[in-house]
Amino acid sequence: MDYRDCYRDKRVLITGGLGCLGSHLAIALVELGAKITIVDSHHPMFGANRFNLKPIEGRYDLNICDIRDVDAMNQLVKGQDYLFHIGMQTSHVDSMTDPFWDIDINCRGNMVVYEAVRHHNPECFVIYAGTRGQYGVLDRIPVDETHPMRPTDIYGVNKVAAESYGFVYHRAHAMRFSSLRVNNCYGPRHQMRHAKYGILNWFIRMAMDGETISLYGDGGQKRDYNYVDDATDAFLRAGAHPDECVGEAFNLGSGKARTLRDATELVVKYAGSGGYELVPWPDDRKAIETGDYFADYSKFAAATGWEPRVEMEVGLERTVSYYKKHRAEYW
Amino acid sequence: MDYRDCYRDKRVLITGGLGCLGSHLAIALVELGAKITIVDSHHPMFGANRFNLKPIEGRYDLNICDIRDVDAMNQLVKGQDYLFHIGMQTSHVDSMTDPFWDIDINCRGNMVVYEAVRHHNPECFVIYAGTRGQYGVLDRIPVDETHPMRPTDIYGVNKVAAESYGFVYHRAHAMRFSSLRVNNCYGPRHQMRHAKYGILNWFIRMAMDGETISLYGDGGQKRDYNYVDDATDAFLRAGAHPDECVGEAFNLGSGKARTLRDATELVVKYAGSGGYELVPWPDDRKAIETGDYFADYSKFAAATGWEPRVEMEVGLERTVSYYKKHRAEYW
Repeated sequence: MDYRDCYRDKRVLITGGLGCLGSHLAIALVELGAKITIVDSHHPMFGANRFNLKPIEGRYDLNICDIRDVDAMNQLVKGQDYLFHIGMQTSHVDSMTDPFWDIDINCRGNMVVYEAVRHHNPECFVIYAGTRGQYGVLDRIPVDETHPMRPTDIYGVNKVAAESYGFVYHRAHAMRFSSLRVNNCYGPRHQMRHAKYGILNWFIRMAMDGETISLYGDGGQKRDYNYVDDATDAFLRAGAHPDECVGEAFNLGSGKARTLRDATELVVKYAGSGGYELVPWPDDRKAIETGDYFADYSKFAAATGWEPRVEMEVGLERTVSYYKKHRAEYW
Repeated sequence: MDYRDCYRDKRVLITGGLGCLGSHLAIALVELGAKITIVDSHHPMFGANRFNLKPIEGRYDLNICDIRDVDAMNQLVKGQDYLFHIGMQTSHVDSMTDPFWDIDINCRGNMVVYEAVRHHNPECFVIYAGTRGQYGVLDRIPVDETHPMRPTDIYGVNKVAAESYGFVYHRAHAMRFSSLRVNNCYGPRHQMRHAKYGILNWFIRMAMDGETISLYGDGGQKRDYNYVDDATDAFLRAGAHPDECVGEAFNLGSGKARTLRDATELVVKYAGSGGYELVPWPDDRKAIETGDYFADYSKFAAATGWEPRVEMEVGLERTVSYYKKHRAEYW
């Protein structure tokens, strides 16, 4: 039996479902026979794009509202079997320029979601999109889930807090909660209008536009990238393995650390245009830079059988091909 | 030279200065020749008591306001050399019944304080009152500062977040920030009107009132207690050692783990009345119980020379004597 069969005829709520990861999940779930409802704030700086859901047009419910809307969330969680909770503020830089905004969405807003589940649907399985940014300053790589979390920006602090609320509610209120700490994720359906988050996606746009990408320092900082299809599969596997995943946090990872320079060279190669240059670190970026990052995802592999399958060369080729075809919807 | 001489003629802001630890700091600082301003919300459930500052009447400025008052905090931080930041929501149980309230004070409110310092007095040295509750579920005891933080209640999560904001601001904005993770603290000047926090203090009241104290389970959970004079000295030493303390978090501790039953027996002995009984764990308490706790405070001892000096027998005798004399002000 395919692990994904568990979603057939199930009701699934996806916050941030108009964004990159959320829309990939939505498309996969509809194809698996789930009845999905998408919640999205449609905030202009976030990733909402109705075109992302073109392949499943007419086969999903869309509810536009902010996760901070208590009455709305209380209604929307009712009757759902799964909640893939992806919709949050995701810009590191914005969290530093407006920390109150980040606190309001990523602390208070997440609590609105958990309180809704606790009071209106305590059986719902909540799968939370965490981030590798929760680890911040690193003692060692590869990073496993026991590594201390010392984030370097307010976004990272609040993502730790929101994940921790989930585990507190799991312990105190038996909420079924799991967290996947997502890597740098790239692929089709990302927002391509600004560089505030999802930097590799922005580089893809720049290269496709024939521009010169600026890398800070020597571009030698190592990162760990996942193609969005692999991240999507990770969320589906987590939901399909409640016995292994409830109450647990897991890293995603690629198994292959790459320097930003190497990744950029691949981007330029597959875009067939553009280039890059090395420039000094801006102060505000340097202050929140966390050094090389490379994840140990063996805990999640053991729990669910997940492995990243899409090599970066393949992922970039597919990504460029998608944006070449649908450029008008994203640029 | 006495390390405390650094406070002579210095300006010191104390949030939560009408509470237990805050008022002890205020009295010590006035006696050391500092010019102090106290900020306190006077929230009825918190520890504010004007009588606490009787020994320094007329020798301090009092500003009643909430730390969430942006305009007030922006003014109050100006010109201060030190900020002892003690004033927060401190009830574990209330954080579970009203998590939004805890988020509003302990996430947003703390950010108001840090933003005020960042924009209006970037030289100020901020000493933050952290808590042993930040550690939550323990892998090992004694607990040193590298132990993972997995709080079991919303209060603990938000105390981690607020401390982490401070270190993010230290790194990104050069804010001078240090955190002391305070133990269970007991002594004179605590609020004695309810059991929502400072449980040993509540037991002292019950014993003095001739009542029977209920201990959960076998009362065998180990705790680490500091008399308030030792905690006060710790804050004064942190402020006096910026080179060693800025950018660092430290545990306080007693060097002596005691079961709650042993501590209660001492309370009953020094109160000269009351008793105790063992009762089953209530569900809501069990869910946020973290097991035995015992701190390793060697990092702070090495940094500042601090050692706990007041044995529990001595501390309890002084505490009971104080409340016998001033019972009307606290009961």
